[in-house]
Amino acid sequence: MSEKIAFLGLGNLGTPIAESLIKAGYQLTVWNRTASKADPLARLGAKVVENAIDAIETGGIVISVLADDTVVEEIFSMELAEKLGKGGIHISMSTISPETSRQLSQIHDWYEATYIAAPIFARPEAVVAGVGNIAISGKAAAKEIAKPILQGFVKGIYDFGEDPGAANVVKLAGNFMIAASLEMMGEAFTMAEKNGISRQSIYEMLTQTLFAAPIFQNYGKFVANNVYEPVAFKLALGLKDINLTLQTASDVNVPMPMADLIRNRFISALAKKRNNLDWSALAQGASDDAGA
Amino acid sequence: MSEKIAFLGLGNLGTPIAESLIKAGYQLTVWNRTASKADPLARLGAKVVENAIDAIETGGIVISVLADDTVVEEIFSMELAEKLGKGGIHISMSTISPETSRQLSQIHDWYEATYIAAPIFARPEAVVAGVGNIAISGKAAAKEIAKPILQGFVKGIYDFGEDPGAANVVKLAGNFMIAASLEMMGEAFTMAEKNGISRQSIYEMLTQTLFAAPIFQNYGKFVANNVYEPVAFKLALGLKDINLTLQTASDVNVPMPMADLIRNRFISALAKKRNNLDWSALAQGASDDAGA
Repeated sequence: MSEKIAFLGLGNLGTPIAESLIKAGYQLTVWNRTASKADPLARLGAKVVENAIDAIETGGIVISVLADDTVVEEIFSMELAEKLGKGGIHISMSTISPETSRQLSQIHDWYEATYIAAPIFARPEAVVAGVGNIAISGKAAAKEIAKPILQGFVKGIYDFGEDPGAANVVKLAGNFMIAASLEMMGEAFTMAEKNGISRQSIYEMLTQTLFAAPIFQNYGKFVANNVYEPVAFKLALGLKDINLTLQTASDVNVPMPMADLIRNRFISALAKKRNNLDWSALAQGASDDAGA
Repeated sequence: MSEKIAFLGLGNLGTPIAESLIKAGYQLTVWNRTASKADPLARLGAKVVENAIDAIETGGIVISVLADDTVVEEIFSMELAEKLGKGGIHISMSTISPETSRQLSQIHDWYEATYIAAPIFARPEAVVAGVGNIAISGKAAAKEIAKPILQGFVKGIYDFGEDPGAANVVKLAGNFMIAASLEMMGEAFTMAEKNGISRQSIYEMLTQTLFAAPIFQNYGKFVANNVYEPVAFKLALGLKDINLTLQTASDVNVPMPMADLIRNRFISALAKKRNNLDWSALAQGASDDAGA
């Protein structure tokens, strides 16, 4: 295989994804705002460019894994969409609002390029292990080209139709559910602890039985120990996501009281200067409230 | 095996548990307030008695699976504890407050009997399939006698030490987490639905990946379809459990804002006359709020 891919964004998730693509035989041209982050990719054979636009080939494929809506809109300017042009495909893996995806899709349409949303559910180690999952949406023809590329480094790809915002809705819903699971464990384990039961023992029972799913087993360890490091996803990004969730819900008149509660936990965690912890540190709020 | 067991309470859960014990070879003497519910057990060979106390043998084993704290306290009077007497073991499988378990344990102690808490996580069909799980706590010697009896019809038994209330705390924490999972899915699926994504498709992705656990897979079907039948656990019992959770938390100064939210969902569901639905109908609140 010698297909070329432009790759924008080498953060915690972008880097292992780019590495997986190189290992799968793709020729990558990579760009990152902080250029030094491209060094490990360069050593694996990626071409590194100084400006995002120089990575783009007309009619080619570009994958972006960027921090948030603002960065995506800033980096993926009209100029880039124009250069990507006819037949070009933009696989946007960032967790952004469905509205931003829909707007970007329109801009791509003007230049006869195609934008598809393909946000990934995976922490960096899950990308390396190939056990992440992708929600995908957008035009069918482009998805059929994107899927074999993505399949190399994930377990499953779930298709949510033609609306380019649909996959982002699913990603936001999923992230909300993860955050809510953290709060849920925070409250349950704290109640158990103050009743003389070790957080570890209730964690073990519940995550081996009713809640035997990766989210509870992996994040539950953080909550059981009340230790929220190492950081894979910063707390401020968690707040960003829940804000997007609530905005997306509000746009279609859906109240989400549980998401409101989660949002306040994130805000409080930032007030307590926990931004350098993993986003799962929101679960510490329940312990704080109980004076534990 | 021909060991005798007294069995009190033949409701949705008690009946399949009693049947499993008979199939495992135990000689059961059963009692239920509504006597007709004992008929199927009688056909399997159980001895049926009219008064709970007649089921009890001094120094023997009694298993109770009753509806709530009030019923347990009413049925398991001092008279019964006295008759159970020296060497007798009471395996209490009801979901009741830890405080009630501790008080009952003291009463048993007076008569040299032993009370152990062994609430079960299982819907009736899970008992039949032998895939439920039990949290157990109380005096070690009695637990060692109880475990082989219980092992026959569950997947796992998790020991939470000598405090007779500990297993009830774990059961309440777990039930809270199930209820919170229902609300979480209700909000997430409704947000997706009003964004043009079918509840079924987001249910499928999330419960095959991040949330691939029985709670989400099984209850998620109810939430995906917004159909909360057949009833395995009535909505009013869900409210009873969350009230116990909040009381148990409050007793040790643990605020549980997510549990407060769940409690209000149950109250609202009762106001909407949903008591004849399964407790998972609390998840319909999110749809109602969204005018869906």
